[in-house]
Amino acid sequence: MAQFPPKLFFRQLFDHLGSSTYTYLLADEDSKEAILIDPVKDQAERDEKLLGEFGFTLKYAINTHAHADHISATAILKSKLPGVKSVISTSSGGDADVHVKHGDVIRFGSFQLECLSTPGHTSGCTCFYFGAGNCVFSGDVLFIRGCGRTDFQGGSSEDLYDSVHTHLFTLGDTTVVYPGHDYKGMLMTTIGEEKRLNPRLGMGKTKEEFVAIMKGLNLPYPKLLDVAVPVNLKDGREE
Amino acid sequence: MAQFPPKLFFRQLFDHLGSSTYTYLLADEDSKEAILIDPVKDQAERDEKLLGEFGFTLKYAINTHAHADHISATAILKSKLPGVKSVISTSSGGDADVHVKHGDVIRFGSFQLECLSTPGHTSGCTCFYFGAGNCVFSGDVLFIRGCGRTDFQGGSSEDLYDSVHTHLFTLGDTTVVYPGHDYKGMLMTTIGEEKRLNPRLGMGKTKEEFVAIMKGLNLPYPKLLDVAVPVNLKDGREE
Repeated sequence: MAQFPPKLFFRQLFDHLGSSTYTYLLADEDSKEAILIDPVKDQAERDEKLLGEFGFTLKYAINTHAHADHISATAILKSKLPGVKSVISTSSGGDADVHVKHGDVIRFGSFQLECLSTPGHTSGCTCFYFGAGNCVFSGDVLFIRGCGRTDFQGGSSEDLYDSVHTHLFTLGDTTVVYPGHDYKGMLMTTIGEEKRLNPRLGMGKTKEEFVAIMKGLNLPYPKLLDVAVPVNLKDGREE
Repeated sequence: MAQFPPKLFFRQLFDHLGSSTYTYLLADEDSKEAILIDPVKDQAERDEKLLGEFGFTLKYAINTHAHADHISATAILKSKLPGVKSVISTSSGGDADVHVKHGDVIRFGSFQLECLSTPGHTSGCTCFYFGAGNCVFSGDVLFIRGCGRTDFQGGSSEDLYDSVHTHLFTLGDTTVVYPGHDYKGMLMTTIGEEKRLNPRLGMGKTKEEFVAIMKGLNLPYPKLLDVAVPVNLKDGREE
């Protein structure tokens, strides 16, 4: 289990309206500074209410990548909550107030997240490691017994395999993985679990085996890709 | 946050297929004894797989009450996993291998849950307090900023108000509440939050105000009530 430090407020939230996205709220209960990871436009009202209930000030609205399945809440949160800064990786090619790269640190109150560049699902995917809570927010890179698809937006199965094995599977086995999605009602996993049980990336699978698995998926074209990606590359602005 | 003790495996699971039920898996990692709270028939395969992945032996499949919105997985789990015992309260009037009442203790490995009799949503509702993890499984009694309906199955707004104020709001403010459902993508709350923010039961609401709120809800008749309740009173057996 993630063992969160005192004064760290944490909440996992689920988009039950369509995208099955997990949004994460973290806040410092002392300074009241908060961040959201992967907020969803359709859930912005819920998230804004939750922030208000605790008197939190949203400092950063972070996207792990330019999403293809939902519109980010960054633009709407910025319009409603003055001072919020959006965050995305430089390598995503997307607009944001703050661009991050591997090794950068995102601070809120007395806490911090470490940026891990983990391309593969998209070329700009970033995971966020929260050492004080023994957990990592894995976006669409590593899922529970699965992973993000690699067949569009600069995706690369080779890169995803390397990202997971270099930056995630090297974390401790007890590190909790909070994914960007789950489609089976699972909420979290651990690095140790995925090394042992992930049928694509764990269980001793080689890079060649992984590439073959991904090639064989034959996934349908994402319904919202043509709508969501251009908007999300503009920081969630629907112009 | 719930701070789970070492060797306690915990997983919150969501039924995304229709009922929005939360199922909870708790296990002792040493003895491998596990329990499930409110397993859902449609998710039995997922839950059985998860138990198998960790080598857990399911000791108890517990229902917080006779559900009206989904069929319990107790019967199917009992047929697939020998030795499982189903649990429900005596006051539910339902079949089960083990009947519990207020103050009873459910043991798995070196851990235990305490049964709290909390009628109101139904006459047989039971919450389960897990002191070692500073959390309570609140079934359909207390929801996040809400509560279960009180207009059928022996439901009583007066009883629900008394149950919450006598047995839940008297727990510590930091006690995490894991509800039986949420319909907005929220996953958990705390006793302190609900005392402060629950618009029906907290915020200084009197019993009379609560009764009036519940009377005014005019909820639709539950789609599955006539199917699910008779089956769940027979321990999930579809005969």
